[in-house]
Amino acid sequence: MGAGYIGLEMADALTVRGLSVTQMEQLPEVLPTVDPELGALVHAELAARGVEVLTGTTVQAITRAAPGQAGRLEVAATAADGAAVTRAADMVLVVVGVRPQTTLAAGAGAAMGVRGAIAVDSGMRTNLPDVFAAGDCVITHHRLLGVTYLPLGTTAHKQGRVAGENALGGTRRFAGSLGTQVVKIFDQAAARTGLRDHEAEAAGFAPVTIGSAADDHKAYYPGSHRITMRVTGDRATGRLLGMQVFGHKNAEIAKRIDIAATAIFHGMTVDAVSDLDLSYTPPLGSPWEAVQMGAQAWTRATRPR
Amino acid sequence: MGAGYIGLEMADALTVRGLSVTQMEQLPEVLPTVDPELGALVHAELAARGVEVLTGTTVQAITRAAPGQAGRLEVAATAADGAAVTRAADMVLVVVGVRPQTTLAAGAGAAMGVRGAIAVDSGMRTNLPDVFAAGDCVITHHRLLGVTYLPLGTTAHKQGRVAGENALGGTRRFAGSLGTQVVKIFDQAAARTGLRDHEAEAAGFAPVTIGSAADDHKAYYPGSHRITMRVTGDRATGRLLGMQVFGHKNAEIAKRIDIAATAIFHGMTVDAVSDLDLSYTPPLGSPWEAVQMGAQAWTRATRPR
Repeated sequence: MGAGYIGLEMADALTVRGLSVTQMEQLPEVLPTVDPELGALVHAELAARGVEVLTGTTVQAITRAAPGQAGRLEVAATAADGAAVTRAADMVLVVVGVRPQTTLAAGAGAAMGVRGAIAVDSGMRTNLPDVFAAGDCVITHHRLLGVTYLPLGTTAHKQGRVAGENALGGTRRFAGSLGTQVVKIFDQAAARTGLRDHEAEAAGFAPVTIGSAADDHKAYYPGSHRITMRVTGDRATGRLLGMQVFGHKNAEIAKRIDIAATAIFHGMTVDAVSDLDLSYTPPLGSPWEAVQMGAQAWTRATRPR
Repeated sequence: MGAGYIGLEMADALTVRGLSVTQMEQLPEVLPTVDPELGALVHAELAARGVEVLTGTTVQAITRAAPGQAGRLEVAATAADGAAVTRAADMVLVVVGVRPQTTLAAGAGAAMGVRGAIAVDSGMRTNLPDVFAAGDCVITHHRLLGVTYLPLGTTAHKQGRVAGENALGGTRRFAGSLGTQVVKIFDQAAARTGLRDHEAEAAGFAPVTIGSAADDHKAYYPGSHRITMRVTGDRATGRLLGMQVFGHKNAEIAKRIDIAATAIFHGMTVDAVSDLDLSYTPPLGSPWEAVQMGAQAWTRATRPR
């Protein structure tokens, strides 16, 4: 079973239904779309729930098991140190990422862009007259990266709406992605929006990423959970570039990343995040919302001394 | 026991500890800071949990009970139709709102503003040299209303930070309140940000308020809850002016109102809310976040035909 959100969600769903699950991941950590500090927390949750997690492990072959062997299939893999790893399985799910399927469009003469995806403008127009394209097959306009390829369901919905309105004569523009994502792993959730440190660096920013933690609500009120955050800001401008959050699924992780996504959408500085008037009651939050505390940790750590 | 957030939170806290609670509210509905449509849902939750709710009921006297009577106190009230209402009680909690305590500041010569609160500029400076003021005793700069009085803990924290930085020679400004609030009532939560219809009307906007509902996450995934929303927008400009949300406390009500608060902070139109790149996974959301569905319901209802 491969990496990424879909692999994690399948490991979760199959384990809770009583199946014994092994997750083989080629990269050094599960969920490579977040920093390793958060990936390790996801890994720990998988392990705590009984998923066998084999990172740095490359699947080489999936073969039918010999008669008399356990399971119907045998998965042969190579560990990071070169050692052979085999596991018997009744079912193998392969997650290998997304590639645009553009045969039809290419055959019609549509121009292609990055990663072989269909080139579209912000109105979702292809180079072909009256032909619009949207979804996993098209390039993605990103608010911080310019043109990239980043297929997500949320983005597809927005692009489809733009294409539909414009096909009817509208003038709507796709406002751009921030790569906002969330995944549930058993009782935990991991989310990100905007850029991570190395992505921001590659895009020409001067990023600093600061980790911090806060309670999802006042700890004196029962049922509070600790949230782990990583805030990426630009040292030159103070601009908020990205945020990553990990914590209990009831700790409003998804909507907290959405607050950050809305702040990034508007080009806020990390410091200005503390100006937002956000809600508070002890059972559901803090006078400074956790997202603001993560931003304040960044400001404290990057302040000239 | 009076109205408002504190009264509701006390009714919740005392009931879950096994006390029998009666809530007397002078106004026609509990939680008058949200529209009656949502107040009725709060009322229903109180009633379902065994709180006796008496709205339109004005407390006239609280007296010591005569020997032999049930309880140590007697509360005498008048119902909306003029009928006398009495209840025996061992404890009476009175919630009558907030008034600024400014004796010290007034004696020192500080100028007062609306509702008798201390007048401050956006740097939290009073008219007295080197004297700053912040919190429940000062007027509130509101992003949509200008100068008002709206004491909240979140606002006090922000104002205190501004006053502290400026007292040390800083140049920080309080960015203004949106009156963002949330309250938990047993297993439900009610939240608001920005202006309600009549508040927006009084402030010179041309408001339209549209109610809608959405699932907190994909209903095919277990544990979903229905969210009730009310979106207020300006018919003339399309600007998002306010939002109110009610639903299960695990339905991320507080952080959803914070997404709306962040959008209002930036002066977004209701329509543009759909441009925000917000997170999605079926157990925790929808491809269009509920806040975006509420905004889209507003746009559909107000579109010229």
